[in-house]
Amino acid sequence: MTAVSPAHDQPSIEPLATTELFAYLAECREMVLGEIRALMPTASRYRPILYDLMLEYPLRSAKALRPALCIAVCRALGGSLEGVLPSTAALELYHNAFLIHDDVEDGSLRRRDRPTLHRLHGVPIAVNVGDAMLALALEPLLANLRVLGLGKALRILQVVSRMARASAEGQAMELSWMRAGQWDLADPDYLRMVYKKTSWYTFVAPMLIGSIVAGAGDETLAVVRKLAACLGIAFQIRDDVLNLVSDPARYGKDLEGDLREGKRTLIVLHAMRTAGASDRRRAARILERRSPGRAHSASVRWLRRLIDDAGSIRHAERVAEAWATRARRHLEALATHTTPSVHLRTLVRLADFAVCREH
Amino acid sequence: MTAVSPAHDQPSIEPLATTELFAYLAECREMVLGEIRALMPTASRYRPILYDLMLEYPLRSAKALRPALCIAVCRALGGSLEGVLPSTAALELYHNAFLIHDDVEDGSLRRRDRPTLHRLHGVPIAVNVGDAMLALALEPLLANLRVLGLGKALRILQVVSRMARASAEGQAMELSWMRAGQWDLADPDYLRMVYKKTSWYTFVAPMLIGSIVAGAGDETLAVVRKLAACLGIAFQIRDDVLNLVSDPARYGKDLEGDLREGKRTLIVLHAMRTAGASDRRRAARILERRSPGRAHSASVRWLRRLIDDAGSIRHAERVAEAWATRARRHLEALATHTTPSVHLRTLVRLADFAVCREH
Repeated sequence: MTAVSPAHDQPSIEPLATTELFAYLAECREMVLGEIRALMPTASRYRPILYDLMLEYPLRSAKALRPALCIAVCRALGGSLEGVLPSTAALELYHNAFLIHDDVEDGSLRRRDRPTLHRLHGVPIAVNVGDAMLALALEPLLANLRVLGLGKALRILQVVSRMARASAEGQAMELSWMRAGQWDLADPDYLRMVYKKTSWYTFVAPMLIGSIVAGAGDETLAVVRKLAACLGIAFQIRDDVLNLVSDPARYGKDLEGDLREGKRTLIVLHAMRTAGASDRRRAARILERRSPGRAHSASVRWLRRLIDDAGSIRHAERVAEAWATRARRHLEALATHTTPSVHLRTLVRLADFAVCREH
Repeated sequence: MTAVSPAHDQPSIEPLATTELFAYLAECREMVLGEIRALMPTASRYRPILYDLMLEYPLRSAKALRPALCIAVCRALGGSLEGVLPSTAALELYHNAFLIHDDVEDGSLRRRDRPTLHRLHGVPIAVNVGDAMLALALEPLLANLRVLGLGKALRILQVVSRMARASAEGQAMELSWMRAGQWDLADPDYLRMVYKKTSWYTFVAPMLIGSIVAGAGDETLAVVRKLAACLGIAFQIRDDVLNLVSDPARYGKDLEGDLREGKRTLIVLHAMRTAGASDRRRAARILERRSPGRAHSASVRWLRRLIDDAGSIRHAERVAEAWATRARRHLEALATHTTPSVHLRTLVRLADFAVCREH
């Protein structure tokens, strides 16, 4: 089911067709890669071990969702492409730096269908490449002062600063639960963590920055912010679901990796709440084992059955749908601040995609 | 021997006495800690696993050399304390974030007389705390726009961006040598790495930022930059020497850790160049073993004898002295841009300390 499809509530904006969306995403991706390449020294002795590795994740089969969201919002609100491009490079650098560090922190094995960076090059090089990307990301944000003027450039820097901090706080919440072996968590705990960890840097910051570049007023910014928060939550829940139900041949990451890494997903938390005391203890023991590298074990199969029997995936899907409904309402409100355009239609389709994507 | 002591060349500026220097450093440290604490939320659910851990390294027996350099330069050039304090908080956050990530990258065991952060709390939490400190560091730099105005704030942001990138490039050089098992390195390779890895964030950035806050002109900035580069190199060589010759009871880090971590120091590179082919191969095998956690082994003792027999520590001290002499010349030039003050005397004493410190 789709979040914004005509079948449900006859929205006023027709979403972009899938082939058009892919073309739009591909075009944004090429532009942001060009922008990132332009930030790098052309001839540098650090290329093989630093600058080339910065492009390793972005060049894998990534959708470049964040730059596309940033560009689509900006242009839907009447902003210029040239004005927004430097910021998309910063967002993509931040995103991929976080991915590299997250993969180290989670001990993840695969990212976008290939081994994670720390498995290819070791933890030291991976941590350093991430740090260098965070450093490089400052440059386009400073260039914004020339391109956009002080007011907009400063507000964008403030959004990025808030984003980086929110992400670290969300990550800290999750890590503290893992360290304490804490499983008695309610859905609002998860939602708060995901708002910090996913919504802020995948939706809130890209969409706010696009709006700021376009010169949006406070009222529009407030709508964009609510829309982005809802989309981020729906997106992360869908991400959790896909980790369990994807076709292994098409899924680029570790299928059921969340179970082996002991992640507190809405799905697992529901299954834990629903299970009897002895099943709950057994599930916690399995989840605490945290063995990302191990083969698919009988324990994980048992856990998966527990989840299926409890209807936990369905529960997560229902929660995601509620957030998608809220997102749809905010999107309709945003549409009243714009004139119809391919960018607005892209935004509607991206919102749909965030909630309903198959991979 | 001291870099700027009256015994050697009767400098025009009398360095601060040791007790006065310690008082100056302690005062700067208290002020910068207060500034960092003010950036943190007072009541936060993330405190125990995020914000408290940010203060873990700064609260250990650190000298807060970077803030003191920044403040002393700024005030020696007539700048205000209030104007420079936010930037010192950013520098101290960057410095300690780099320390945390470096300790992870190097697998170091001890930092400032206690176990490293990743040993106390695990790699995931340590990497995340470092990222959060890099995020938090942006806030005082943005606050500079209000405090110092656009021109100075922007130039400071540019220095920080350049600093973060130089550090990552220096780290990448060292990591690439380690990965490739490369030992045929000349002193200029080492000096270039250290200029990137140490000079930039320990001396160049703090001293340039202090000068910018004070409103220094291009000529002064050029002198400060040369002075800082020379001091950074002399400082790092002294650091390498101390890693071998310190009193274990007073040295806060792993004594001879550079040998066990396979670091390319000026000392080791000299010993390798001086040794015969078979000793060189044996030394490389020992250094490649990289076993930071192992007890003091017979191999490391053999390596240490090789270094002593080659006079490599003396070679490093001679190189450091040459850079200290250059620093002294630039410091005398800088003095002509200022009027005498306790801050200038502090700077002279700090320059001396960088080169001659015993711990």
